[in-house]
Amino acid sequence: MKGIWFTEMESGKLATSYKVKKILHQETSKYQTIEMFDTEMFGRMLVNDGAVMTTVKDEFVYHEMITLPALNTHPNPKNVLVIGGGDGGTIREIVKHPRVEKATLVEIDERVIEVCKQYLPETSLELDNPKVTVLVDDGIKHVQEKKDFYDVIIVDSTDPVGPAVGLFSKEFYQNVFDALKEDGIFAAQTESPWVYQDFINKIFKEIKSIFPITKLYTAAIPTYPTGLWSFTMGSKKYDPEKVDRTQIVDTNTRYYTADLHYSCFKLPRFIQDILE
Amino acid sequence: MKGIWFTEMESGKLATSYKVKKILHQETSKYQTIEMFDTEMFGRMLVNDGAVMTTVKDEFVYHEMITLPALNTHPNPKNVLVIGGGDGGTIREIVKHPRVEKATLVEIDERVIEVCKQYLPETSLELDNPKVTVLVDDGIKHVQEKKDFYDVIIVDSTDPVGPAVGLFSKEFYQNVFDALKEDGIFAAQTESPWVYQDFINKIFKEIKSIFPITKLYTAAIPTYPTGLWSFTMGSKKYDPEKVDRTQIVDTNTRYYTADLHYSCFKLPRFIQDILE
Repeated sequence: MKGIWFTEMESGKLATSYKVKKILHQETSKYQTIEMFDTEMFGRMLVNDGAVMTTVKDEFVYHEMITLPALNTHPNPKNVLVIGGGDGGTIREIVKHPRVEKATLVEIDERVIEVCKQYLPETSLELDNPKVTVLVDDGIKHVQEKKDFYDVIIVDSTDPVGPAVGLFSKEFYQNVFDALKEDGIFAAQTESPWVYQDFINKIFKEIKSIFPITKLYTAAIPTYPTGLWSFTMGSKKYDPEKVDRTQIVDTNTRYYTADLHYSCFKLPRFIQDILE
Repeated sequence: MKGIWFTEMESGKLATSYKVKKILHQETSKYQTIEMFDTEMFGRMLVNDGAVMTTVKDEFVYHEMITLPALNTHPNPKNVLVIGGGDGGTIREIVKHPRVEKATLVEIDERVIEVCKQYLPETSLELDNPKVTVLVDDGIKHVQEKKDFYDVIIVDSTDPVGPAVGLFSKEFYQNVFDALKEDGIFAAQTESPWVYQDFINKIFKEIKSIFPITKLYTAAIPTYPTGLWSFTMGSKKYDPEKVDRTQIVDTNTRYYTADLHYSCFKLPRFIQDILE
């Protein structure tokens, strides 16, 4: 392994290493370390606290799949909130959707936004869109203060350690529920089913105790450890698997399709078992 | 990274490393290097020529998904051939299927079979089943000699380098076609859509030029580079997406389900684009 490599470690047992062409940026913000590498295989890569957040080559999978199943399940997602997601990729997918009128990003770490505006134009390009409001603030506090306000809330957080711990608590899910309108929908990234079975079981049950319709779905993301990622959706009224196909908008995606809208909820049996 | 680690390298740009509890076996056979490690995260792991073949923890994904979509598409898969697959996992899934009467394994490297019988009872346990015939032979030659003989042929090969190169040629696919009965089905592992786009495009078109019904499908396999794997099915008569649901047998799977039988063919758009 000649040259420079960045290695992400999972549980001290699995290490994924990327050959680095150039180290573009390294800093420690108030909340976390922020690094930007130009990698041979995946292009530019944002790394927070040693974990790959997003890369130019595969970011579309995560950003489409954390937003579009919820957006296309809601018949009228006019007002959308993103918590986290300072790289802007989730916002980009939201403002492409023709039924969205307003998107608010609440990112706690201003430095993530600034570093991504500098080095990741592919994801950050819509952060200055007139439909978008960017707030540098604590997402936990933000949802506590809103009642019956948003149509869709996307929790685009880092792993449940460090600044994101509070985004995986039952109190937070209750506040998200209350911040949503009476037919609102929420979706969050909820880690790898190969590694975090107990964690997924716990938060799935917590969300299910609050939202009438709770569903887990997956997407294949090569730069996240084990390559398979789960997302959990909580919905007050609309069932994502019962959406009329004509409601699903084609927004020039690279991963998500109308067929995948339904098939992503068809879980491998070992993942069904995790939810029991 | 203290202790012993095994690293698999992909294209010199991506390295996946597994913490090793114990090195159980290392040899160079007539065809390839064969190694068996006991890893912290995935248990026992078979490695041929430096590439992970199978692990105790995740082998079920590959072995179910290379066999069950084809087996459940064929209404009467009595006589099944496996080329490669010396670890026995594919044979295990086949003999579990109630409509199978006879399964033949043609593995070129006897040492793979022997090492797996010693160290991987989880996959090799059915190699002595009375329904199973194990031939140590060249699969390319075997299919050349059979005409109108098998109901289903599974090509469970290593990567298209070294001993497996000939298993990814148009001549071989034509011989597989001829070795199948008039309603036969063939399925093969066809590498990662993140890395081998040109390769997948080429062999998909070659198989499509021979088989009336050709479909690509995917499964999420954490120990294969990039975590997303493609399989290609060529069928003379039956369309896997049009199978009557009542024909799909539940064989106590851990990944494959009747729902997944259909949803695994719903491809992300970037994979659809590879096939154009």
